[in-house]
Amino acid sequence: MSILIKGGTVVNADTSFLADVYCEDCLIKGVGEHLNVPSTAEVIDASGQYVMPGGIDPHTHMQLPFMGTVASEDFYTGTAAGLAGGTTSIIDFVIPAPKQSLMEAYNEWRGWAEKSAADYSFHVAVTWWDESVHRDMGTLVADHGVNSFKHFMAYKNAIMADDEILVNSFRRCVELGAIPTVHAENGELVFQLQKEMLAQGITGPEGHPLSRPPAVEGEAANRAIKIAEVMNAPLYVVHVSCKDSLDAIVKARNAGQRVYGECLAGHLLVDDSVYQNPDFTFAAAHVMSPPFRSKPHQEALWQGLQSGNLQTTATDHCCFCADQKAMGKDDFSQIPNGTAGVEDRMTVLWDAGVNTGRLTMSEFVAATSTNAAKIFNVYPRKGVISVGSDADIVVWDPQGSRTISAKTHYQNIDFNIFEGRKVKGIASHTISNGNLVWVDGDLRAVRGAGRYIKRPAFHPMFKAMDTFKQQHTQGAVKRK
Amino acid sequence: MSILIKGGTVVNADTSFLADVYCEDCLIKGVGEHLNVPSTAEVIDASGQYVMPGGIDPHTHMQLPFMGTVASEDFYTGTAAGLAGGTTSIIDFVIPAPKQSLMEAYNEWRGWAEKSAADYSFHVAVTWWDESVHRDMGTLVADHGVNSFKHFMAYKNAIMADDEILVNSFRRCVELGAIPTVHAENGELVFQLQKEMLAQGITGPEGHPLSRPPAVEGEAANRAIKIAEVMNAPLYVVHVSCKDSLDAIVKARNAGQRVYGECLAGHLLVDDSVYQNPDFTFAAAHVMSPPFRSKPHQEALWQGLQSGNLQTTATDHCCFCADQKAMGKDDFSQIPNGTAGVEDRMTVLWDAGVNTGRLTMSEFVAATSTNAAKIFNVYPRKGVISVGSDADIVVWDPQGSRTISAKTHYQNIDFNIFEGRKVKGIASHTISNGNLVWVDGDLRAVRGAGRYIKRPAFHPMFKAMDTFKQQHTQGAVKRK
Amino acid sequence: MSILIKGGTVVNADTSFLADVYCEDCLIKGVGEHLNVPSTAEVIDASGQYVMPGGIDPHTHMQLPFMGTVASEDFYTGTAAGLAGGTTSIIDFVIPAPKQSLMEAYNEWRGWAEKSAADYSFHVAVTWWDESVHRDMGTLVADHGVNSFKHFMAYKNAIMADDEILVNSFRRCVELGAIPTVHAENGELVFQLQKEMLAQGITGPEGHPLSRPPAVEGEAANRAIKIAEVMNAPLYVVHVSCKDSLDAIVKARNAGQRVYGECLAGHLLVDDSVYQNPDFTFAAAHVMSPPFRSKPHQEALWQGLQSGNLQTTATDHCCFCADQKAMGKDDFSQIPNGTAGVEDRMTVLWDAGVNTGRLTMSEFVAATSTNAAKIFNVYPRKGVISVGSDADIVVWDPQGSRTISAKTHYQNIDFNIFEGRKVKGIASHTISNGNLVWVDGDLRAVRGAGRYIKRPAFHPMFKAMDTFKQQHTQGAVKRK
Amino acid sequence: MSILIKGGTVVNADTSFLADVYCEDCLIKGVGEHLNVPSTAEVIDASGQYVMPGGIDPHTHMQLPFMGTVASEDFYTGTAAGLAGGTTSIIDFVIPAPKQSLMEAYNEWRGWAEKSAADYSFHVAVTWWDESVHRDMGTLVADHGVNSFKHFMAYKNAIMADDEILVNSFRRCVELGAIPTVHAENGELVFQLQKEMLAQGITGPEGHPLSRPPAVEGEAANRAIKIAEVMNAPLYVVHVSCKDSLDAIVKARNAGQRVYGECLAGHLLVDDSVYQNPDFTFAAAHVMSPPFRSKPHQEALWQGLQSGNLQTTATDHCCFCADQKAMGKDDFSQIPNGTAGVEDRMTVLWDAGVNTGRLTMSEFVAATSTNAAKIFNVYPRKGVISVGSDADIVVWDPQGSRTISAKTHYQNIDFNIFEGRKVKGIASHTISNGNLVWVDGDLRAVRGAGRYIKRPAFHPMFKAMDTFKQQHTQGAVKRK
Repeated sequence: MSILIKGGTVVNADTSFLADVYCEDCLIKGVGEHLNVPSTAEVIDASGQYVMPGGIDPHTHMQLPFMGTVASEDFYTGTAAGLAGGTTSIIDFVIPAPKQSLMEAYNEWRGWAEKSAADYSFHVAVTWWDESVHRDMGTLVADHGVNSFKHFMAYKNAIMADDEILVNSFRRCVELGAIPTVHAENGELVFQLQKEMLAQGITGPEGHPLSRPPAVEGEAANRAIKIAEVMNAPLYVVHVSCKDSLDAIVKARNAGQRVYGECLAGHLLVDDSVYQNPDFTFAAAHVMSPPFRSKPHQEALWQGLQSGNLQTTATDHCCFCADQKAMGKDDFSQIPNGTAGVEDRMTVLWDAGVNTGRLTMSEFVAATSTNAAKIFNVYPRKGVISVGSDADIVVWDPQGSRTISAKTHYQNIDFNIFEGRKVKGIASHTISNGNLVWVDGDLRAVRGAGRYIKRPAFHPMFKAMDTFKQQHTQGAVKRK
Repeated sequence: MSILIKGGTVVNADTSFLADVYCEDCLIKGVGEHLNVPSTAEVIDASGQYVMPGGIDPHTHMQLPFMGTVASEDFYTGTAAGLAGGTTSIIDFVIPAPKQSLMEAYNEWRGWAEKSAADYSFHVAVTWWDESVHRDMGTLVADHGVNSFKHFMAYKNAIMADDEILVNSFRRCVELGAIPTVHAENGELVFQLQKEMLAQGITGPEGHPLSRPPAVEGEAANRAIKIAEVMNAPLYVVHVSCKDSLDAIVKARNAGQRVYGECLAGHLLVDDSVYQNPDFTFAAAHVMSPPFRSKPHQEALWQGLQSGNLQTTATDHCCFCADQKAMGKDDFSQIPNGTAGVEDRMTVLWDAGVNTGRLTMSEFVAATSTNAAKIFNVYPRKGVISVGSDADIVVWDPQGSRTISAKTHYQNIDFNIFEGRKVKGIASHTISNGNLVWVDGDLRAVRGAGRYIKRPAFHPMFKAMDTFKQQHTQGAVKRK
Repeated sequence: MSILIKGGTVVNADTSFLADVYCEDCLIKGVGEHLNVPSTAEVIDASGQYVMPGGIDPHTHMQLPFMGTVASEDFYTGTAAGLAGGTTSIIDFVIPAPKQSLMEAYNEWRGWAEKSAADYSFHVAVTWWDESVHRDMGTLVADHGVNSFKHFMAYKNAIMADDEILVNSFRRCVELGAIPTVHAENGELVFQLQKEMLAQGITGPEGHPLSRPPAVEGEAANRAIKIAEVMNAPLYVVHVSCKDSLDAIVKARNAGQRVYGECLAGHLLVDDSVYQNPDFTFAAAHVMSPPFRSKPHQEALWQGLQSGNLQTTATDHCCFCADQKAMGKDDFSQIPNGTAGVEDRMTVLWDAGVNTGRLTMSEFVAATSTNAAKIFNVYPRKGVISVGSDADIVVWDPQGSRTISAKTHYQNIDFNIFEGRKVKGIASHTISNGNLVWVDGDLRAVRGAGRYIKRPAFHPMFKAMDTFKQQHTQGAVKRK
Repeated sequence: MSILIKGGTVVNADTSFLADVYCEDCLIKGVGEHLNVPSTAEVIDASGQYVMPGGIDPHTHMQLPFMGTVASEDFYTGTAAGLAGGTTSIIDFVIPAPKQSLMEAYNEWRGWAEKSAADYSFHVAVTWWDESVHRDMGTLVADHGVNSFKHFMAYKNAIMADDEILVNSFRRCVELGAIPTVHAENGELVFQLQKEMLAQGITGPEGHPLSRPPAVEGEAANRAIKIAEVMNAPLYVVHVSCKDSLDAIVKARNAGQRVYGECLAGHLLVDDSVYQNPDFTFAAAHVMSPPFRSKPHQEALWQGLQSGNLQTTATDHCCFCADQKAMGKDDFSQIPNGTAGVEDRMTVLWDAGVNTGRLTMSEFVAATSTNAAKIFNVYPRKGVISVGSDADIVVWDPQGSRTISAKTHYQNIDFNIFEGRKVKGIASHTISNGNLVWVDGDLRAVRGAGRYIKRPAFHPMFKAMDTFKQQHTQGAVKRK
């Protein structure tokens, strides 16, 4: 299939300009004016529209087995919904159970993901430690294109990584040229506060945020950052939800440390008043970790995006329907954690970010696509409209609008945290691997069309860290 | 014994003024001009001198069993040396071995301390957790005048308190009206870095600071502060040695949190170049934790004192002689940690603090005496020259000078980290419990003259925290 | 007159304790149990109540000629209203017109103030500069007990002090042992923004805060602090109203600089929504500079008080009635700036500060009395319940309550910014100069009973700065 | 002329990759492998080398009339020296005398610059204000490609811009889509401190830094930033030399404000000990403003570059020889301010930045070229190796080395602040406008070959600010 996108304004993270874009054989083959293209090319009229790299959602959990159930959105429905919103790649997570072999879990997830309609890749979680984990990390990096490992600092007595695991795994990441990532919440404090809330008789969803206050997240973020500093590792903090953890990131970044932060569309736009809703189903539908926060924290996240202290936006897309959420009817700590968003991320960020003047268009592209591609080392294959890059493109209509609703969304969940929000600025066309998969409201996603994307190790940035380390090695003192 | 101190300038933490001071029966009975005193009173001519509350060293370890040996300074020699320097009270530490009963350890230490020449009290360490620890903490507060509990975040596989212990103990402290204190270093990181240094062949004392970089301390301080924030507990951070942990304290304090910080005379005046000394004995004599730091960290500590972000000065007085230090000849991690200072703390702080204009005289009194008395709730019994207070007084000669040396000091150790330092401003007289114990170079300390000081719970400050907590308790939401 | 206050709890800034207090001849003559007092002494039963040093309001403008009118509250009515609320001293301002002799203005204000019912003192403003100003500053310090000079960084084309005046005056203050104070707002920005708002057709009171955003205050505070740093001067920033200026103060203080900050009862409790009120009279009644701010700024001010980064509370009491405010009916920049509060400051701070657990009682005393006494060097004459101190005392009934209203207040103004607020914790008795002037709702203020209080120069703190400076003086380099 | 650069690694700000680069007719015509190029093309073997966008020095003063003399380096010699070091563009400054017409000054400078060997552009200084300045700014933006205006906050009684000028000019910049820049030093403080130093008998160059301490720079930077915040203007702070001003920038950036900072190669590498040199000629040669700073400030600048809080590196290249410097023999304030560096900037930054691991290669390109191109809106014409961009290229030999010396440099000055420094990593070839002008030590600069570069207004970033402003405009309240 060959496609010519005509008359649009290409928006990349570094600049924007009027140009046609020609795609063929999965790749972008031409960017410019007066391109010489075959007459058979399908032509998309993009005049008055923006031609941007397809979105990358670096944080999703399709069909995740979690808290006694399985997320309702599978890799096909989830990636298809993403395409409807302009997102052409996801990075999901392999999460081994404690004591489970990393390779075994990895293969399991690879199998589940084969039905994906869009490109995908995997972070792999380190939830325990022994020699086999050390070895499997090496195999995953060398042979399977995994360059990032995830660590949950919460979920005590389940998948929580304590300091010993963190130190060992961060060190191993440095050896391998991979980047460690963390879910930053102090699991011990969450555990104790959950017990305390339940003991006080607070069993409803309002107990969820009370058991995970911002200090809990700020502590863990700072701890991971300091461990990374000591081990000379880069670090990526997922779903930064509050000023406390952002402050820890900002302080480290200002000192030159290589720390990155991700924020979720939901945390930018939904505040913690949802947990006070008297309807259990509504409140429980918002139970995710970290929880939604108060407005000053939201304002801080926007400043994080504007300043570049937060580089990426994601969704932590992890769908549980009302009947699943009802598992925690009498005990908020049993409500499966997760909300949806892969379909809506780009449009809500444009509407609340670009339309308000908080972000430039180039900053929008950086935050939805380019930065994730750079940090996880698939740039410039992904994340830019440039000759030779994958033909993952979204044509963006700044005048188009829609009203978000669970009734009309493609996501396989019965709730939408952005329900009723009117947004201006939507994907008119999405191209995935050179194929038109979304055309003015017509979703043409193909089950299994997505490819597994290998991400090479040794990002150039980390090489610099290595050099820096060598310079600072101090030897033994000659003693008398 | 009755004593009249005539013609001096009384310096308290809040103000200074010319006045005579009269002591009788262990107490200050008069402060003012033209006091009516018995003719039998011994008269000290304090003209041209300052009359200040005796120093309180809130951090000492007399005759501590540690790392396979016992500190060379006992309670008698140590408190006597303190009196020679103007320090009239110490707060030492009861440190139960893991699984040892707190009460048993407490009684053991009480026995050792009976020989003290000056007043003393005890923080009790929480090094493990079960119901008996919970219960004994209550007994110690209710019956034995203990209002502070210590937690070592370092020393993995020995006395390290992990997050579970910290959370449980901090909560218990709040219930009891006691204040938790922490030695803030991330024990896991220290443990791993020690192994790494030894693996690299760095076995000498220079490996000590390399295994305990500032980030290790900053991480732990921040963690303890955040746990305290969540548990609504006050917190006291012992021996803040670097900008990293100070920054964590400052950030919390600026937000109104009740966090206190202590710094050591040694950390203010000695820098980390000592570990590069080719003489093992010299370098090893400086091995303590946290280690001495580079000059910018020292400057930060001084700013901490000036700003009041650090409230107290201490010594962590813990003496090991050269033969003891030699236990770590081939492995720095086996060098017993500790240095001396109880005798020199006040004079070096005056010389480097007041004489340079960094601190006012009142700030000196606050930092050497008053603030410790307030935080540990023995004010105004201690820490102020006022009618009714204990007659613990130092008469300070701002013109007097001496050169510090292990050859002449009273401390029972063969090394002095301030060796050769000439100081101006010294104690001319020290009064302890109404007795003259130091008179122009004549030490008259009496074995066993010191009293155990009970410190009551429920400092008024903590009551405010309790009120604050009640205001913020949030109840359950009424659900449909 | 001799008075015995029996059975109360004395609350000072450093501690609190049960004690009787005996006053005679304007002074406190006894503090303790079982005092030996004449049987003729009037006895106040203070059981269940707190006995605290009378409040000091360090920022009032009685009968100020300003913006074409004169404040409605004179020195008698204003100080009397203060006594009803427990405030026994004010520090008002002498504000010379540009080119007016400082001595002439000073004498004018002294004359106006003779009718005061409570003790008073004066800051003197430096609104212009020449040799006579330099000389008069010296005279005021040496002969008239003035130890603080005020600088308005706002009010362009009127009394604004530009950098040249600031530098010259701060240097002179250092020579004299006086402390400079600043009203921190960038006058040029205010001037330009006022023009801009009026040009946009925004003529009502809502234009007032728009023309004085927090950045305008933050800029000026930082500028004054930096000039003070360079000139080696201490600094006191009046009416800190927002996070921006507080941040500048905090940063300087954390670095050890001697900077102090004052906040107003109004800024702590009233937010900027008042300017949106459709009733001009209501909105205009709140026009003061800096304006009221949004809630996050208020929260920051409370944290400033809790942390001690703000030391004092004041009112900027400056009363203009509705007919005076109407001068700016068509142009907000012509509304006379000012609100009342001298009567209500202590009770609203207790209610919102102590009752909520934000402040301890001792912190309340520090913030309402002691710190002002220390900074402006009248401590311990004022600011403490102690033998020898002035008998300026408030007996505080923590169970007493009242509803604040312009209908019932003693202040000579037709509006109260705290209208309708119910407060718990009020003055039951006020003693001024040893006289009972407020007894359970009965105001016995006496015209002219107040005394002018001389405040000596050379606060001990500033001597330390001088020493510090000498240590850092750098000489010329020897050149070839 | 057509040139093929073969076998090198292209390094751009966003990524690096192996590719050949083909230049023709002043432009880059091809980037990739197996390019189809004419056989006549001159071939440069770049194997083992890096092919990077030519450097942009955004801060030079060629042949500047200043302090009673004229800088010794003219536009030809200066741009030629730049080419020898890999710098292919400069942005110099038009500095009208107070009351001089901006257009007149602009035309004067344009004339002087015609001899340039490399491309050049101009910032225009606003040194005074009236309607003609307002008008001429518009003409310069609309007709002459000026999109940045400079403001000196220092140099009282000469070219200093006070707050009134700053506010008026910043507002005008916003209207025009131009970016204001500031030299941030508080001119009043400098003026007073200079007088004070001279009065104390400090007349040598060591008086220069004493009269311009970091606080002086920090104050001005913060003031400009706050004015920009209030006027909704972007801001570029030139030659950030110290932590104080960097902190102000960082704070603003973290809050999302569009503030940019430049640092000089000299400030990164030379410390303030040079002013203590007993040789007047040596010390005076280092007199520039802001002065060189102590090592902690240098470390802060490196962190600023690493974190991206400082975006650009420049030189403030302004050459005065020993005989010119001698004008201030008896009075440091008369020493012409300025040092050289346009030739050495890139190599010293590579050596101290990339070789040490502080910066990645892409960060080096961003800091020496790309970011300046973006901020001053000539990207992607300049600042990137990309098809269609100007053929301004440096071929960088990471193994090449040289020792910097005034004896061998091309700069027209008798001193080099990097004298004796051995650097590894140098330009092997420089291409300017498609012409080979530097070939392995052979400088082929052509007088007059440089072109004036127009820089369009309305950087996309500033459009976002405008949108943001509209969203926040608040209207008048409806009053009764």
